[in-house]
Amino acid sequence: MSLIPTHDLIAKLRSRGAHSVALQFPAGLKRQAWPVAAALRDAGFAVIVSGDPCYGACDLDLDALDLADVLVHFGHAPVEERARVIYERAAADIDVSVLEKALPLLSKKRIGLITTVQHVHQIDAMAAFLESRGIEGVAAPGDGRSPLRGQVLGCNFSAARATGAEEFLYVGTGLFHPIGVQLATGARVVALDPYTGTAQEVDASRLIRRRFAVMEKARDAESVGIIVSTKSGQQRLDLARRLAALSDRAVLVTMREVCPDELLNLGFACYVNTACPRLAYDDQVRFPVPVLSPEEFEILCGVRRFEDYAIDEYLCP
Amino acid sequence: MSLIPTHDLIAKLRSRGAHSVALQFPAGLKRQAWPVAAALRDAGFAVIVSGDPCYGACDLDLDALDLADVLVHFGHAPVEERARVIYERAAADIDVSVLEKALPLLSKKRIGLITTVQHVHQIDAMAAFLESRGIEGVAAPGDGRSPLRGQVLGCNFSAARATGAEEFLYVGTGLFHPIGVQLATGARVVALDPYTGTAQEVDASRLIRRRFAVMEKARDAESVGIIVSTKSGQQRLDLARRLAALSDRAVLVTMREVCPDELLNLGFACYVNTACPRLAYDDQVRFPVPVLSPEEFEILCGVRRFEDYAIDEYLCP
Repeated sequence: MSLIPTHDLIAKLRSRGAHSVALQFPAGLKRQAWPVAAALRDAGFAVIVSGDPCYGACDLDLDALDLADVLVHFGHAPVEERARVIYERAAADIDVSVLEKALPLLSKKRIGLITTVQHVHQIDAMAAFLESRGIEGVAAPGDGRSPLRGQVLGCNFSAARATGAEEFLYVGTGLFHPIGVQLATGARVVALDPYTGTAQEVDASRLIRRRFAVMEKARDAESVGIIVSTKSGQQRLDLARRLAALSDRAVLVTMREVCPDELLNLGFACYVNTACPRLAYDDQVRFPVPVLSPEEFEILCGVRRFEDYAIDEYLCP
Repeated sequence: MSLIPTHDLIAKLRSRGAHSVALQFPAGLKRQAWPVAAALRDAGFAVIVSGDPCYGACDLDLDALDLADVLVHFGHAPVEERARVIYERAAADIDVSVLEKALPLLSKKRIGLITTVQHVHQIDAMAAFLESRGIEGVAAPGDGRSPLRGQVLGCNFSAARATGAEEFLYVGTGLFHPIGVQLATGARVVALDPYTGTAQEVDASRLIRRRFAVMEKARDAESVGIIVSTKSGQQRLDLARRLAALSDRAVLVTMREVCPDELLNLGFACYVNTACPRLAYDDQVRFPVPVLSPEEFEILCGVRRFEDYAIDEYLCP
C-alpha cells in the first residue's frame, strides 16, 4: 500500500494526457517506489522507476524522462523548471509551539525565519507563533533555485540574505543549513530541531578550521581534478573552466556521482568540487584525498584572500 | 609520464580538427588519466577526463562527449560505431608458445580459437602455433558487437558460434568468458591463462546450480524490478518491456550503475537484469536480493522450459 497518496497525482497525469510516467524518489522515500508504481500501473499508466541515487531537485533523472511522457520527482521543490516534470513535495507537519524552545536563545526582536522544504508550508504559522511572543519573524523568497519563502538549500542561502535580518532562527534537522547561513550572512543563527526540541546557536568556526587543514594538505598536489557534474541541475561548467585555467596542474573531470572509489581510481592528488557544494564540506571524511570548494582552490591559487573565505553556493545564474 | 603513447593519438585528433577532447579509461587504466590528459593539454587540446566507472565499450560516456569535440575511449574495441568517438585498444603481447600447455587437454584436430580484446591482435600467431603442432585453429568474426576475429565479450559469444567448432581453446584470464562459450555453444572449452600457463577444461555446471538456487529464492517475490540500463550500449528496452509484461508484479527500473546499495534502497524483492549480462552471474554475491537474467525470469514466468536454460547474451539487433 502506498504511503504517498496517488489520487491527485493520477488526476494531474490524466489532465496532461500522459500515458507513460517515470518516478523519481530521494533516498528516504525510495521504498515507496513499488507501491506508487503499482498504483499508477493499476490506473493504466506505463511506469518506469528511476533506480539511481537522487539527492535533490538538482538531480533530475533526464534519462528516465527520455523513456516516458512525464517525470514525477518526489520530495523536493523545483530548482529548475522543466516542461515535462511534475514536482511532488513532501510536507512534514510540526507543532509550531516547539519554537518556544528557541526563544531564550534569540536576542533580537526581528528574526529571519529559515527552514527546509519539508516544513516550508508552515512558515507563516511559525511567524504567527513568534508574533504571539512579540517577535517579528521575517521570511523571504530566495533566488530562482529557492523561490519558496523561507526555504534554504544546502547550496543556496539566498532566502536568508533576502530577509536582511541580523539574526536567524532555523527550524529543521541537521546543522549544515544553519552553519551555511551563518557563513553566507555573517549573522548569528539559532537552530531548532522541531522533533527533539533542541535549540542551539551554531558555530561555523570548527568547519572553517577543518577546511583550512584540508587546504594545507592540498597545497602541494601535483595533479588537480576539477570535478564537473553531469547532473542537469549541478553542472557549473563555466566555473570549472575558470578554475582549471588557474593552474597548469588542473584538468576537468566529469562525474555523475562523486564517489570515493572513483576519486581513488582516477588517482588525482586533489580535487576541486563544482558539483553539489555540500559534497566537499560533508563528505571529506569519506574521500581519499582533499576535495576543495571553488573558493578554497582560489585561495590556494592566490586569487582570493584567506580573509575572503566564503561558503560555496550554487546561485541562480 | 604517460605509459600510454600519445604521439599517434595527437596526430589523429589533429587530423580530425579536434580542439577539445574527452578521455575515458576502464578501471585498470584510470591512473593514466592525468599523464595522458597532461600530454594532450601540452599539445594544445582542451581536455576533459571522464570520472565515472567504465566497464566496456558499451559504456561510452556521452555526457563527457557532450562537452568535447571527440571522445577517446581507451582499452576496448567498439561495440557500437559513433561519429565522434575514437577507440584506442590496449594490446598485451603474450608468448604464443604458451599454448603448448593446453595441447594435452585438446581432443580435436579442429579447434575454435577465442580470446579477449587485449590478445586478439595475436590470434593469427596463435593459429600458426597450433598449426605447427598439427591442429587447425579456427577464428571467426562475431556479430556487430564483436567484429574482431576470435574476440568474445562477456555478453557476446557470437565469434565462438561462428567457427562451427566442436571444441574451443580460450586464451585469456578469468573463467567467465570460457564458461559463457560452453553455455552458448554446448561445446567442450579449454581455458588457458597465458600469464600463468595454467590450462583447464571449464565446467559450467556449478554456475548453473548456483543460478537455479537464486531462481528458487526469487520464485515468490512480491515485487520485481526489471532493470533497464541508461548506458548507451547496454540498453535493451524492448526486452525489458517484454519481460515486464510477463508479470503483474513487475515494473521497469532505470539504472546507470547497478549498485547493491541502490537495489537495497529501492526495496524490490527481486530484480531482473537487462543491463550488462555479466552483472547477474558475477555480482550476485554482492546483491541483497536475487538478480535474475532475462532467461531465468522467463523460466519462472513459465514461458521458457528449465531444459532451455540459456546464458544471457547481448547480440547485435
